[in-house]
Amino acid sequence: MLHSVIMAGGSGTRFWPQSRKNLPKQFLNFTGEATLIQQTVARCGDWISPARTWIVTGASHVSETQRQVPAVPIAQVLVEPAARNTAPCVGIAAIQLAAIDPSACMLVMPADHVIKSSSEFVRAAQAAAEFVDQKPARLMLFGVKPTFPSTGFGYMQRGAQLPGNTVPAYDVAAFKEKPDLATAQTYLSSGQYYWNCGIFVWRAATILDALATFEPEMYRLLMELAKHVGRSTWTTALAELFPQMPSISIDYAVLERADDVCAVEAPFDWDDVGSWQAMPRLKQADSHDNVVDGLHVGVETTSCIIRTSSEHLVTTIGVKDLIVVHTPTATLVADKHDESSIRILIQKLKDMGLEGYL
Amino acid sequence: MLHSVIMAGGSGTRFWPQSRKNLPKQFLNFTGEATLIQQTVARCGDWISPARTWIVTGASHVSETQRQVPAVPIAQVLVEPAARNTAPCVGIAAIQLAAIDPSACMLVMPADHVIKSSSEFVRAAQAAAEFVDQKPARLMLFGVKPTFPSTGFGYMQRGAQLPGNTVPAYDVAAFKEKPDLATAQTYLSSGQYYWNCGIFVWRAATILDALATFEPEMYRLLMELAKHVGRSTWTTALAELFPQMPSISIDYAVLERADDVCAVEAPFDWDDVGSWQAMPRLKQADSHDNVVDGLHVGVETTSCIIRTSSEHLVTTIGVKDLIVVHTPTATLVADKHDESSIRILIQKLKDMGLEGYL
Repeated sequence: MLHSVIMAGGSGTRFWPQSRKNLPKQFLNFTGEATLIQQTVARCGDWISPARTWIVTGASHVSETQRQVPAVPIAQVLVEPAARNTAPCVGIAAIQLAAIDPSACMLVMPADHVIKSSSEFVRAAQAAAEFVDQKPARLMLFGVKPTFPSTGFGYMQRGAQLPGNTVPAYDVAAFKEKPDLATAQTYLSSGQYYWNCGIFVWRAATILDALATFEPEMYRLLMELAKHVGRSTWTTALAELFPQMPSISIDYAVLERADDVCAVEAPFDWDDVGSWQAMPRLKQADSHDNVVDGLHVGVETTSCIIRTSSEHLVTTIGVKDLIVVHTPTATLVADKHDESSIRILIQKLKDMGLEGYL
Repeated sequence: MLHSVIMAGGSGTRFWPQSRKNLPKQFLNFTGEATLIQQTVARCGDWISPARTWIVTGASHVSETQRQVPAVPIAQVLVEPAARNTAPCVGIAAIQLAAIDPSACMLVMPADHVIKSSSEFVRAAQAAAEFVDQKPARLMLFGVKPTFPSTGFGYMQRGAQLPGNTVPAYDVAAFKEKPDLATAQTYLSSGQYYWNCGIFVWRAATILDALATFEPEMYRLLMELAKHVGRSTWTTALAELFPQMPSISIDYAVLERADDVCAVEAPFDWDDVGSWQAMPRLKQADSHDNVVDGLHVGVETTSCIIRTSSEHLVTTIGVKDLIVVHTPTATLVADKHDESSIRILIQKLKDMGLEGYL
């Protein structure tokens, strides 16, 4: 049986002041339709019901998660007692599912990405799930065809094509870290590389076996924890054992080390919405190349990203390449090309005792 | 007897969104001490009491005027039924004062300027008042020594020095419109030019005589209106007669045409606070050349003018020469050097049906 596992541990600051400590990116609405986590749950809605949907998140985000996706049973909202990256997150979901059904399959998805066509996504995920059910027990990824030479995404190089199936799938020959622009351009023009969009399909048993091989200590802790699945001791055991797990991504822990890592060619538009810079990819710019959300009036304003409410009027005169984000308690005005300094700004706010604004 | 007449008819939009239709510049606090109209009333406080202070303003500003300067008797808040520039404004104050005291003197001041030293101001105004009491009946102005080649102020060229008195005073040889930069520089270096700061001292009778000479129709209407001073018919008569007066400044109507126009050399720092650009003259910039009012945190931010409340956090990254003004309902982000486009912006807001934000 296939379950979806939504990783909603994000606590990023790159969308500050829109995102806050208690309202990270997955809870925001960037496209006008629904919040990212709502879109993620809805994406598989007709195929994997909320009754088979699991969400892994942090303690401070449980209530917002319930508020935004009330259809997901509360018992299936797993609460990480500490931030430990994606491998332990996948691990605890895997032991929960394996306890219910030894042959359980899991579709693992970040809660905070944008995928344009749900039907295309489901088609690809179904194809991936078929490969998982074959021998050998594969770890399936999704490779998105690059549409521009992104230096912000990780890439994977495709190897031999897998036999059969309606959606093309390939062995993953190599993973590539975020490249420089020149390298990204060669990846793009070669046609041999995909963006690794961090969405996976595998059997719970397969990923646990892989963790046993590559992360034996994490596996030992997971097996200890597995004894408490479905019992009243779960929370206490999780609080004791989870923080002992190494903080490592599932990519580093398993995927870059394992054989039988394959990828279906993703036929859907995908974006990880990594920063305000992603806005022009998600929303059509106006005739002055501005991407605007909310009530804005500009004079000689070009190539800006502007976000406000429908009540608070943001006006701009004679500006270019700015990010302007207004929220009721804080406003950001930033050079679009200097966005990484937001980390410096956040640190400065902490240093100045202004954590209340984070 | 000397009275002060404060011209508070301003309805400018150059400080939008801080200034609004119902809260023009004179009601704003730019220097942290008090609002501009409060400063204007207080400036002469020990010399000309509120009991001899008159304010001329528009109907929509009466309640805010009373709220901000409650010491001024409500009977001395004269309400213009229409906007008619400064000559009719001075005219109605003059007929009120002349009715009380045929030898009344009036110190006429805009409500929305900043003068740094009240004691210096009073000293100069007292000196000017002495010249008014001499023969011939002079119209006295205040000439501020230029400190920079302003292209935003009007100038006057000094003529022969008047005899006597502790504060130097001169005939005004010529008035000069706002000059271009090169001309402003020659004015500055010559030492023969003053800024005309729009503050005047004269007898009510003298300015009425001058209006009789140069603006006979306005004078006729004023004399008609004078019959109603102190009577219950004043408001009705004003509503009928005032709008018939030509909309003209006292400078054009009288000062540029009359003989016996003189100026004392103003020993005080003065600023007309004409736009956000004035802020660096009013308030010390920080070490990054930013002039900040309210809660602001910047990263790589230089030469900006930033204004917000002490609660709403404004943050900036990688920006230079910007004006950022946050108010609860509207925010402006503008190139400091493109500020005149605010007129275009205001028009655009009107065209878009967003008058509610003005």
